[in-house]
Amino acid sequence: MNYRIEKDTMGQIQVPSDKYYGAQTARSLMNFKIGGDRFPRELIRALGILKKAAAMTNKELGTLPAEKADLIIKAAEEVIEGKLDEHFPLVVWQTGSGTQTNMNANEVIANRAIEMAGGELGSKKPIHPNDDVNKAQSSNDTFPTAMHIAAVEQIHHRLIPMVTKLRDALQKKSEEFKDIIKIGRTHLMDAVPLTLGQEFSGYVQMLTNGLERIDAALPRLYELALGGTAVGTGLNTHPKFAELSAKKIAEITGLPFITARNKFEALATHDALVEFHGVLKTLAASLMKIANDIRWLGSGPRCGLGELHLPENEPGSSIMPGKVNPTQSEAMTMVCAQVFGNDVAVNIGGASGNFELNVFKPVIIFNVLNSIRLLSDACESFTDHCVVGIEANVDNIKKHVENSLMLVTALNPVIGYDNAAKVAKKAHAENKTLKQAAVELGLLTPEKFDEIVRPEKMIGPKA
Amino acid sequence: MNYRIEKDTMGQIQVPSDKYYGAQTARSLMNFKIGGDRFPRELIRALGILKKAAAMTNKELGTLPAEKADLIIKAAEEVIEGKLDEHFPLVVWQTGSGTQTNMNANEVIANRAIEMAGGELGSKKPIHPNDDVNKAQSSNDTFPTAMHIAAVEQIHHRLIPMVTKLRDALQKKSEEFKDIIKIGRTHLMDAVPLTLGQEFSGYVQMLTNGLERIDAALPRLYELALGGTAVGTGLNTHPKFAELSAKKIAEITGLPFITARNKFEALATHDALVEFHGVLKTLAASLMKIANDIRWLGSGPRCGLGELHLPENEPGSSIMPGKVNPTQSEAMTMVCAQVFGNDVAVNIGGASGNFELNVFKPVIIFNVLNSIRLLSDACESFTDHCVVGIEANVDNIKKHVENSLMLVTALNPVIGYDNAAKVAKKAHAENKTLKQAAVELGLLTPEKFDEIVRPEKMIGPKA
Amino acid sequence: MNYRIEKDTMGQIQVPSDKYYGAQTARSLMNFKIGGDRFPRELIRALGILKKAAAMTNKELGTLPAEKADLIIKAAEEVIEGKLDEHFPLVVWQTGSGTQTNMNANEVIANRAIEMAGGELGSKKPIHPNDDVNKAQSSNDTFPTAMHIAAVEQIHHRLIPMVTKLRDALQKKSEEFKDIIKIGRTHLMDAVPLTLGQEFSGYVQMLTNGLERIDAALPRLYELALGGTAVGTGLNTHPKFAELSAKKIAEITGLPFITARNKFEALATHDALVEFHGVLKTLAASLMKIANDIRWLGSGPRCGLGELHLPENEPGSSIMPGKVNPTQSEAMTMVCAQVFGNDVAVNIGGASGNFELNVFKPVIIFNVLNSIRLLSDACESFTDHCVVGIEANVDNIKKHVENSLMLVTALNPVIGYDNAAKVAKKAHAENKTLKQAAVELGLLTPEKFDEIVRPEKMIGPKA
Amino acid sequence: MNYRIEKDTMGQIQVPSDKYYGAQTARSLMNFKIGGDRFPRELIRALGILKKAAAMTNKELGTLPAEKADLIIKAAEEVIEGKLDEHFPLVVWQTGSGTQTNMNANEVIANRAIEMAGGELGSKKPIHPNDDVNKAQSSNDTFPTAMHIAAVEQIHHRLIPMVTKLRDALQKKSEEFKDIIKIGRTHLMDAVPLTLGQEFSGYVQMLTNGLERIDAALPRLYELALGGTAVGTGLNTHPKFAELSAKKIAEITGLPFITARNKFEALATHDALVEFHGVLKTLAASLMKIANDIRWLGSGPRCGLGELHLPENEPGSSIMPGKVNPTQSEAMTMVCAQVFGNDVAVNIGGASGNFELNVFKPVIIFNVLNSIRLLSDACESFTDHCVVGIEANVDNIKKHVENSLMLVTALNPVIGYDNAAKVAKKAHAENKTLKQAAVELGLLTPEKFDEIVRPEKMIGPKA
Repeated sequence: MNYRIEKDTMGQIQVPSDKYYGAQTARSLMNFKIGGDRFPRELIRALGILKKAAAMTNKELGTLPAEKADLIIKAAEEVIEGKLDEHFPLVVWQTGSGTQTNMNANEVIANRAIEMAGGELGSKKPIHPNDDVNKAQSSNDTFPTAMHIAAVEQIHHRLIPMVTKLRDALQKKSEEFKDIIKIGRTHLMDAVPLTLGQEFSGYVQMLTNGLERIDAALPRLYELALGGTAVGTGLNTHPKFAELSAKKIAEITGLPFITARNKFEALATHDALVEFHGVLKTLAASLMKIANDIRWLGSGPRCGLGELHLPENEPGSSIMPGKVNPTQSEAMTMVCAQVFGNDVAVNIGGASGNFELNVFKPVIIFNVLNSIRLLSDACESFTDHCVVGIEANVDNIKKHVENSLMLVTALNPVIGYDNAAKVAKKAHAENKTLKQAAVELGLLTPEKFDEIVRPEKMIGPKA
Repeated sequence: MNYRIEKDTMGQIQVPSDKYYGAQTARSLMNFKIGGDRFPRELIRALGILKKAAAMTNKELGTLPAEKADLIIKAAEEVIEGKLDEHFPLVVWQTGSGTQTNMNANEVIANRAIEMAGGELGSKKPIHPNDDVNKAQSSNDTFPTAMHIAAVEQIHHRLIPMVTKLRDALQKKSEEFKDIIKIGRTHLMDAVPLTLGQEFSGYVQMLTNGLERIDAALPRLYELALGGTAVGTGLNTHPKFAELSAKKIAEITGLPFITARNKFEALATHDALVEFHGVLKTLAASLMKIANDIRWLGSGPRCGLGELHLPENEPGSSIMPGKVNPTQSEAMTMVCAQVFGNDVAVNIGGASGNFELNVFKPVIIFNVLNSIRLLSDACESFTDHCVVGIEANVDNIKKHVENSLMLVTALNPVIGYDNAAKVAKKAHAENKTLKQAAVELGLLTPEKFDEIVRPEKMIGPKA
Repeated sequence: MNYRIEKDTMGQIQVPSDKYYGAQTARSLMNFKIGGDRFPRELIRALGILKKAAAMTNKELGTLPAEKADLIIKAAEEVIEGKLDEHFPLVVWQTGSGTQTNMNANEVIANRAIEMAGGELGSKKPIHPNDDVNKAQSSNDTFPTAMHIAAVEQIHHRLIPMVTKLRDALQKKSEEFKDIIKIGRTHLMDAVPLTLGQEFSGYVQMLTNGLERIDAALPRLYELALGGTAVGTGLNTHPKFAELSAKKIAEITGLPFITARNKFEALATHDALVEFHGVLKTLAASLMKIANDIRWLGSGPRCGLGELHLPENEPGSSIMPGKVNPTQSEAMTMVCAQVFGNDVAVNIGGASGNFELNVFKPVIIFNVLNSIRLLSDACESFTDHCVVGIEANVDNIKKHVENSLMLVTALNPVIGYDNAAKVAKKAHAENKTLKQAAVELGLLTPEKFDEIVRPEKMIGPKA
Repeated sequence: MNYRIEKDTMGQIQVPSDKYYGAQTARSLMNFKIGGDRFPRELIRALGILKKAAAMTNKELGTLPAEKADLIIKAAEEVIEGKLDEHFPLVVWQTGSGTQTNMNANEVIANRAIEMAGGELGSKKPIHPNDDVNKAQSSNDTFPTAMHIAAVEQIHHRLIPMVTKLRDALQKKSEEFKDIIKIGRTHLMDAVPLTLGQEFSGYVQMLTNGLERIDAALPRLYELALGGTAVGTGLNTHPKFAELSAKKIAEITGLPFITARNKFEALATHDALVEFHGVLKTLAASLMKIANDIRWLGSGPRCGLGELHLPENEPGSSIMPGKVNPTQSEAMTMVCAQVFGNDVAVNIGGASGNFELNVFKPVIIFNVLNSIRLLSDACESFTDHCVVGIEANVDNIKKHVENSLMLVTALNPVIGYDNAAKVAKKAHAENKTLKQAAVELGLLTPEKFDEIVRPEKMIGPKA
């Protein structure tokens, strides 16, 4: 490999000739050979967005010459578009402020801008990574800004659409199944009936609520740290920099970002992300329940509940021929388990800030973006490869309703709870129908029983 | 002890004569000797509220005779007021629907009502625990309703006031300390200055955000399951029961409860509580950070940071005479650790529902109420016994600011980042002041240095 | 209430006349009104044990006069026996070192000893809580010592016996069910058969392993911090104190306690308890699985799997007459959810020590003891009220085996996986038996089919 | 791209011509576009090991013709060596049994073996992925076997060596620092002295214990599920297959694997991995404490504790010139936060098995391997880039010891705790030395004071 020499305040260091990054990125590669997790594309893009916005702001405020700013803006746009991703090699497990990744962005943009200007890579002329690209910035405000931009973009462009997609698919099933009366189950035990459509309407509501939760938490994610610089005071910034740069970011992204109300909070904590991951774990709780219900209702085909027929996507067993499994539910529930784990990592990171800076930034944003990705992808996969193809097994459903002893509940208002219990217990013990038992106990005539105990009249209130 | 005989559908059982509870409570006591955790008063009260509201509603709808309803209402009011707490002996670790605690309430209210009517305890006349007290209800909708009532009351009456109290005390300190310039610390290392008031303003913002988070999550807690009965369909209820009973509860509590939009969701999940505990864990993240900062800033007295003086509440050591410790911070951080743990218990419980019912209700509400209690109490204690008495140690603070090498950052715009780094490194290596180093390097005159490097000019942006 | 005046280094304070505790306990009551959780009896007892052992050791080493030592020993014995529990009112959420509870013990023992000697409560004569009862000790070594003693006693006297009890009950069922062939289920879907006894043998192995895990972790819990005093150096102790006092504790408890190999580790960390809670959470994983299996296998009675009949302990529903639920499983799974939560609280506490002391001691031991208690009690309750009464529903079990398509797997070695899959798929699609499908496909004669596909030959390897 | 047609029991599907994998792998790629996490090399290698061992065993038992077995063995060796990694494209978030990855291995080995034999890819001749490569196996026993092999290899080849490396580096520092007396800190407050070597000896013990914990948990990881096939019964295996195949795996790996005592447990649970992750989280608790201590002791350089000088590896700030941060500690503490999160994911996965199979296998092993990797790498990085270069800042250390008021503790045995407290309080209040205060209070002569209060005599017990 060919190398060139780059320099930082620690001295000289070799850097691959074909990479735009500089000395500090190279040092990080040497010092942090930990795991293999790199920041996802979304975060690199977010760094590009904020560097562009900062340069635009500095240009407008006259704190950076227009020609410098324009070079930076052009280079930053390439970062935004993903053209320079290979120049961002750093892992998550580095300095807790993300300084090395911020410097990676500064170095790449500086060198690419230098190249565009016909300069020499590593010369820092005409563009200096710290003095120009990082102008009026610190890692301590840029990195949290990038964290929020990346999270919010993913929430808007992946999470909300995919949760909505699943919700809508379930809604469609709810309507499709609205007339199928089935046995309810509480404590896993036979209970009173409801319609399959009603059952699915609960799933729909869970995701509608999930979308409301996302909305309710977003306002605090829209707040950006940029302008706080090193400790939140805004040292070395123009008084209008914070507000104006947030406005630029809002324009670039089309999302309602604003400058944070208090920059000390915005650097020293990531409560907004801790909160948002709380929304994600709630979504995971919903999805785990839905995915479990669906695989249980599809269990069998002959020795399970067998009330749903799930799409058969692939052979299920390497030894049992013809076996098909509810694999989409399994992928979903595993994703949910991971999200619950990620939540704890985020909590610990979020609680561990000291003084003016939280230095668990990389682990926090890594987990937030990971959870958003996993949940979004899993919702999409679960919809496409499972929900849309779900069919009701009406034969089994009908058989279960007819067999259930809990239809007895309809008798409560007529013969009272205690007598109704006698009917159910007798039917259970003697393996009889409720009607047989009720009549034998002399509590009702057969005609009266048939009039009252009708599943189709048990699926709602009545006056 | 004296006993009487009570009866349920399983048969007869002995019950202490001096207790209002009946057969099902007695069975639960026998079958669940697990741990010692009982439901807190707040939940018992909530059960009283909903039983009263249900009776009022049944009376109004004509589904229960007025005289029966009035007896139930009177007995329920005693439950609300706490007069019958000793009659609620059940532990948390029971049936996952809370049925036994719902029946405990039904039995106590029935027997107390029977007593008021001059009847015989256990006779179920004139008031039957199932047919009358539980009229138009199931444990499956009453228990989640009580969960929401209890949580919301505690949120309004304890959590919000105590978080506000701490926030306001910190706000006062922030104002008191607004002119004290101190060294900032990032990565635990000396950084650029800010005021102590600014530092505390970050804490204030964290709690202001915490209060916003509480508000943002409350709407879903206001929704009540009542009216869903056994599986969400509302079987055995009047069509107006759900809405009207929620209205009654709102009137009794003075809080904006409404009937849940979808009862299937409201029985089968506790996502609203999972979500709310996500808010609580975020609050714990904030509080852990604040409590840690304060104990670290108060560390010493002679070999630590020593920038704050914390109230001396008690001797700190059984062996080291005169030692005083930041014990309020320690209690707070321990509470936060517990809340992070409780969060996981709630998540697992919340994700583990099946079909029409989540049967992890007791463990969920137990942890939610516990976390609310711990955080509320800890905020109050931390305010009263720590925050209000915090004083700045201005001597140490001043010494630190003067010593810090990071004041060099003010030189960036003048001599550039690379030269400024040379100054700081030389001062550090040769144990000199920044000024000495800057002048010796020929980068600035002493006068210019003094003009630029002034902490009081470094605590905000400047044009 | 009547009061007397007690005094500590902070000054005078009122204490209820009828209590043995002194000034520092009284201060803690004032300063820590947080939650309601008190340390359980086991920890108070453990403090008594170590105070007795310390006094015995000081007597033997001549560092405390025999008459003083004997008074302390007698008072400590009353603490051990539980006679003085009402004098230990402090909550968990106090100083992170447990100093206040250690001083509580010192004060109670001193005052009770003073009383025995005919002295005046609060006079510190002839027994001084610090100089005598706490002789050669610090909270920093006594409290962790008590933590280990309490945990180990509970492990030996409750956890191991109750896990063993459940294991043995399952073992008995495994033998009872050894000849009942049933359908296996993987991914919730019908799979190849096994015996119900084999299925239960997996549960037995899980708990046998659980017991091995407990044993594997105990050695590090046997190590005691006593002798480290304030920071681990053993300042103010006799060179033989550490070893000798551990020996005394071993004698008193009959358990193999030894002095910790390194006292710095023993004060500054609670890794041994973090590790042990890792064992507890593993046990919770096992128990959650077992309890879930049992409730699912017992689901129904008519619309579920219905392969087991669980004991009917109580009415299951306040609205559905005759309903019976798997409540013991529900209590167990809720306990497991709590243990998983407690684990996180312990982890955070355990990771949060600084320098010479971990100050999350109370929250750590509170959760460890709570988890031990809950798991022990739940194992006992689950055994007594569920496992011993489990019966196989042989009709349903037989029906399931006969119906299952996965018996086809026995054909693999004869006709190959791909042909076997054709058989299963045809049977499924056309709702036929495997035999019909196999014969129709011309792959086997009916006789050959009957020879190979025999569940009783499918429950083990064969040559 | 060029394609060929592959076939499974679901039908035909296109597969890239240059890949050895077959139909089921291709289906998984289509059906599971979730996240980007692939199984690490270690697991692919482990699958190769077990496929080789199974073929060797089948050959030896005569259940597979030697020529077939030899082809499989040769292809499996290429999997072991990593030559075929590009043919394993599946993500973690797939079927919960890992069936698709087991089939991926079967397909790749079959096709590579077919190629070696001069056959046609996809023809299943002469080697069939199910009938030959998967002979006497099911995903349900192979995948858990691969999980254990992968984990144990990484534990032996990475985790133990790297924890040992860090332990030894700390041990060396402990010896190097054995004569440096420093102030102890408890509750972050000044306490009695110890040596810096003693302080580091605690870290050493923590890791020695960590290594013991690893050893204590390994026995249950050595147990292999292979031979259990689909549900644990060993259907379609030779009676000697289980034991013999485990022996082969032990030979290939040089590690003491044995066949699991109970195969039902081995398929239906992953308690051994849940347990082992409990060991990993305990290690994380230790490492977080050590890393925090070291960064705090290195805090400053001028406004912190400043007792250690940490290696300066890279510039620490993009805005503050000359700043150096404890970045290795930060990477380590972030890794620990992740491990605590992973622990919860593993717990939930481990607790969620049903009946004969746990279908959270992929998420469990993904997290276990990830935690092992992160902890191993972080230990190595922390050792190389931090611990070996740590130097004591003796000037600051000396100053702190001399200033500390807690040296007063040495006076306890002479003047009693209460008088000693007076001395400390007076010195603190009047900003005096302890000696001045003691003499002014008339409690000791200056000479006596000097004789007793000597830090070098306070770092151990004395007779």
